[in-house]
Formats: sequence, structure tokens, C-alpha cells
Amino acid sequence: MQTIGILGGGQLARMLVLAGAPLGFRFLVVDSAPDACAAQVAPLLRADWRDFDKLAEFARAIDVATFDFENVPAETAHWLTEHTRVFPNPRALAISQDRLAEKSLFREIGLDTPAFAAVDNRDDLARAVERIGTPAILKTRRLGYDGKGQFRLKSPADIDAAWSTLNGAPSILEAFVPFERELSVIAVRSREGEFRTYPLTQNWHADGILSVSLAPAPHSDVLAPIAIAHARRIAEEIDYVGTFALELFVRDGKLLGNEMAPRVHNSGHWTIEGAPASQFENHVRAVLGLPLGDTTALGVNVMLNWVGELPAATPILAEPRAHWHDYGKSPRAGRKVGHATICAANTAEMHERLARIGKALGREQQVEPVLAVLG
Amino acid sequence: MQTIGILGGGQLARMLVLAGAPLGFRFLVVDSAPDACAAQVAPLLRADWRDFDKLAEFARAIDVATFDFENVPAETAHWLTEHTRVFPNPRALAISQDRLAEKSLFREIGLDTPAFAAVDNRDDLARAVERIGTPAILKTRRLGYDGKGQFRLKSPADIDAAWSTLNGAPSILEAFVPFERELSVIAVRSREGEFRTYPLTQNWHADGILSVSLAPAPHSDVLAPIAIAHARRIAEEIDYVGTFALELFVRDGKLLGNEMAPRVHNSGHWTIEGAPASQFENHVRAVLGLPLGDTTALGVNVMLNWVGELPAATPILAEPRAHWHDYGKSPRAGRKVGHATICAANTAEMHERLARIGKALGREQQVEPVLAVLG
Repeated sequence: MQTIGILGGGQLARMLVLAGAPLGFRFLVVDSAPDACAAQVAPLLRADWRDFDKLAEFARAIDVATFDFENVPAETAHWLTEHTRVFPNPRALAISQDRLAEKSLFREIGLDTPAFAAVDNRDDLARAVERIGTPAILKTRRLGYDGKGQFRLKSPADIDAAWSTLNGAPSILEAFVPFERELSVIAVRSREGEFRTYPLTQNWHADGILSVSLAPAPHSDVLAPIAIAHARRIAEEIDYVGTFALELFVRDGKLLGNEMAPRVHNSGHWTIEGAPASQFENHVRAVLGLPLGDTTALGVNVMLNWVGELPAATPILAEPRAHWHDYGKSPRAGRKVGHATICAANTAEMHERLARIGKALGREQQVEPVLAVLG
Repeated sequence: MQTIGILGGGQLARMLVLAGAPLGFRFLVVDSAPDACAAQVAPLLRADWRDFDKLAEFARAIDVATFDFENVPAETAHWLTEHTRVFPNPRALAISQDRLAEKSLFREIGLDTPAFAAVDNRDDLARAVERIGTPAILKTRRLGYDGKGQFRLKSPADIDAAWSTLNGAPSILEAFVPFERELSVIAVRSREGEFRTYPLTQNWHADGILSVSLAPAPHSDVLAPIAIAHARRIAEEIDYVGTFALELFVRDGKLLGNEMAPRVHNSGHWTIEGAPASQFENHVRAVLGLPLGDTTALGVNVMLNWVGELPAATPILAEPRAHWHDYGKSPRAGRKVGHATICAANTAEMHERLARIGKALGREQQVEPVLAVLG
């Protein structure tokens, strides 16, 4: 029986374990937090990312290592490759840890992006603002997620505030794109090079954090094959193995690359119940070199994210084909603590179901953009 | 966050944990075996059923206790009710542990059964054979499962062999019924008295062990409401809380009660992927007093049991909408080590899929009876 090691013990690791256990695999999770929520379903090795004695113990206990978290230090990822098999490979991880390398890769493989410029000091920033204009967003190149490490410049007058907020970290200035919608491709590539994608997902954010996903994304017949081709080129270019997400903006009907996440992704949580093989199961299959599972969507699926604290569970538990996910984490502002997935046979049924749930939860605002799209 | 204690750490406990964890519940498993397979996904408390010090520790750590195994001593179940909440209640457990009490209950609520007689000594057996005739099956009243503790009498000449094989245990002689088919009702009743059933399942056994299940059972429009009414009456009569299975024979188009299992059941494993809420999730909801989940069948589902050892996984992994379950147990003759569930939109698609899988696995014989029924 093979054991999969996961660096990071959050909800993504937890859902990987829950998807991999039925296939007969064992897991070992490394995290420095004693209350890492994945430790409720798998053994936990408490260690810091740079505790190489503990990591050696980890490497001896497992057959393959993977991540629930892309911000593992490059040094740790490289060290691991010398002691065990690691998927995705450290180069793929490094590229997607760095917004500049990531956007450059997108351009290389032919995926357009919003205008951007590297910013290493205040003068770079001033030049970048001149070239790109405002509004624009200054983002740290590394360690940003869920809207953290970002500053939105409304005008050149914001340059000093932006630079001091990001504390002088190597950054990237991106043109602010008034996009029509946000899509993501959840894709998976196996050790054997097999590549599959789920139907496109449409996403809505609130305060920089994913709020709602709808899959399959409506009206995406034309965009889907293009988006999927981009995802495949990226994966092949960096020999990516595992599940990943490519986040895209749609502007004037065209795709722009926003970012990629080298891991299972929040916008793919709907696949647990909405597809025969989830993004989590397929990540496990991919890193072990097994055949990939079926990625078709079963009907229409909506994922509602619970951020900060869980709402009342009963309206979800009592609704047919609605699924409740509580990550076993303590509530905290801005923290992802759970989600729900609602499945339906068609858009009309989904509209009815989602409206009822939104009302029962007092979350009309959260479901409103999806109801509008479902028509 | 509530913790559910499970007595017994086999695959049923394992699947209960995997279904309950997404809902945010924690688990604690009690088993005397250090390699109990549920311990791969939940903490294990190693204890014997009569180690009341350890059981006191168990009771303090949990909010509610349940079973993956019906043969827990009645004394243990009763002791637990004085220290924590226990579902199903010990009386329900006691009745279904005893074939005589069980069959008497079936008759009481109006469910016919094969002819039977209590057998406590050799003379009882001789009288019972005279009354019931042969072929007949002598079964121990307690502790029988998967064909164990049984002897089939072909003629009165087998009386001595039967009696010595069962070693003088209190038994029951049952008429051998040449039934047309075997069905099961997977039902669930919550602490609040809410009652639901999945569509009827048709089952085929090999060597006394479940081999294949098909759900919904074809041609059961007439029988289903009758079977469900029986299951409801039984559950209400014994104030049953949780998931249970009622096994039935069909003879001359009529239902006969065979036995009930006071727990999640092998013939309900298809509900993991084949229904919005599985028998495992609904057992968890029931014992916690939550609303029950959706028990409709999504399309047509077949469960193939893996007994003794696992076949090659690839033909299942590579098949669309087929799901592999490896319980993480060592192979051993007669041991249930895993199963696969195949889902399809309709019977024609299932026929095609199942024939391909049977061939690829070299298991034509296992799938043949289902293919015959699918037509």
C-alpha cells in the first residue's frame, strides 16, 4: 500500500485524503500547526518547512510527496526531490509562486495577459504607472493569495502609498482589467502525460476571496477549447503533474491569463459531487501514475464558499442534492472554513434550488450573481 | 464539533468516517485489532468489548456511539447506554443479533418468512425437521454472518452432522426456500423519527457472501412500496435509529423476510456514488438527529464485491463512472477487501459497461447474473 505525503495540512490536504483513502492509499501530512484540519483524517508530522531532520523522516515514510499549498520554500521542494518523488516538480511550483514568471510563461505559450511590469523599487513603480496607466494593481511577486499582498492604485498619486503598503517587496504592476467574467480551468496531468480538464467554471469573488462557482460555465462553447488548449500547453511546458487551476478573465469576449495555482483549487470543489472523479481523486491518481478518472460534469453545479464562519447547516442538509462541507477549522475573519455544493439536473432546477437556499440562509447577496446568469 | 464513537473498526466504520468527515464530525474507533482498517482514517482506541475501563475512556471522548458490527455483546451495549447516547438502541441490536427474535418480529409486523423453528437440542432438531421438511438450513441464533454458523440439511439423515457442526449452539431451523431473487431495503430512521429508504437493491451471493448488487432493482414497482412499508414498521416497532438493511426473498412474486442487519450494509455500498446522500452519510445524520439526506438513485448502479483479494484496479480506474474502493485490508480467503461501483445513465449503458469490465477483469461469471437481468 502506497503512502502519499502532503506538505501543508489545510482543507485541500483534508479533501485529498478523503478522496484518496477509498482508493486504498495512506497519507502523511506535514504541518507546523498542531490543529491543522487535515490531521483529523490523517497522521500529522509536526514540522517547519526548513526542519530537514523531520523532512527526512517524512521522506522515508512516504512513496510520493505533493502539496496542499504553493508557498512551500523552493529550497524545501528541491531538497525533497533528492529524497523522494515530488509532484508537481519544483520548477512548476517556482513558476507559479512568482507572478512575473507566471505571466511571462502565459505570454510565451500564447495566452494574452493584462499589461504588466516588474517592479523592484519605487522608480520602477513610477515608470510602470506611466506605461500601464491607472487604475492598476501592485502585487507582490511571491506569497500573495486571496487578495493579500495587493494594492489597488486609482491614480499616480497612490504610488507612495502602494509602495509602502507592499513594504518594498519585489512586485509586479498589472493593468486593472474591467473584465466581463472570471473563468477557471481545472486541469490534471498524470505522471504518464495523460491530460484531462473539467468543464470551465465561472467564478465570483468577494473581498478578493472566491465566493461562488458555477460549472459548467454557461455560454463557453467557443472559449472552452481555447482555454483548455492553453492549460495543456502550460502543463506540458513545465512538465506539470497533478491537478492545477488556470484562472482567466474574459474581456471583449477574449481570454486573458490571470494566474495559475499549482494544486487542487477552490473553484474545483464542485467536482467532489459534480463529476465522477473529483479534482482531488484525479490529483492522487496523477501523482501515482494511475489512469485519470472521468472529468465530465454531472448536470449543473454551484459551489458556495463559507468564509469567516459557517452559516446554519440545516437549509443545506434539508435540500435535495445539496452537500455540506465543514473543514473542521475554527472561525476567523477571512478564513475559508467550509463550502456547500448544490447539484441540479438543469439550470431551471438550479435556479429554483439556489434561490430557496439563498433565502433560507439569508445569503441572497452571495447567490444573486449566479441567479442572474442562470436567468 | 461533535465526535462519533464507533464500536468496530472494519470497512463499514472506515466508510462511515469518510462520509462523516466532510460534514465536520470527528470519529473515535474502538477495536481490539491494531490493524483495524478504519484506523487508517480515524483515531483508534484499542480495547476488548468487555474492557470497561477503556470503554469509559471511549464514552468520555465521544458525543454519541454507534456500531460497524452487530455482534457487540449486549452487556457492552447496555453498559454504554448508561455512559453515553447509543444508536441503534441495545434492544434493536439484541433482536437483530438473534435470528429467532428477528423472524418473530417479522411475523409480528406482518412480513411473512420461510417456515422456522427454534432448536435448542438434538430432539428439537428432529422435531423441526419433521415439521418443516428438507431441504432446510440450520443456523445458529447468534453470531452468524456471511454464511458462517450454517448447515444445509438435504435430508433427515443429515440431522446428526448438522447438530455436531453447529456444536450444540442455540439454533433455528429454516425451510430452504427456492426463491426467484433476493432484494434488500436500505432504510434509515433518524433520532427525530424521520424515515427514508433507497430504491430496492437486487443482490446475488456466492458461497454465502454478497457478490453483486444492482440498484434500483428492476421490475420492483409493485414490491417496493410493500417492502418499504415493512421496513418502516420494523424500525418504528423497535425505535431503530440509523441505517439498516432488510433482506428479503421473492418467491412466487411475494416477499419473505430473510434477515435484518442493524447497520450500514454491503448491499448499500452503491449509494456512495449512486445517491446524493450515501447510507453512510445518512447513518451519521440519523444518529446526530440531523435532517436526512436525499436517497434517490442517480441512474443505474452496480456494486461488485471483492472477496479474498483485489482484482487488477486498472479496468475499473480507466472506465468512465466506475469507482474503486480498497479497504486497506490484507488479503485473506473469504474476507471482504474492497468493492467497485459502476454507475450508468440507463440499463443499456450499464450492460455495455459491465460486460466490458467483466471481460477486462476475467470476472465474466461474477457479472453474468446482472447482465442477464439487464437484458
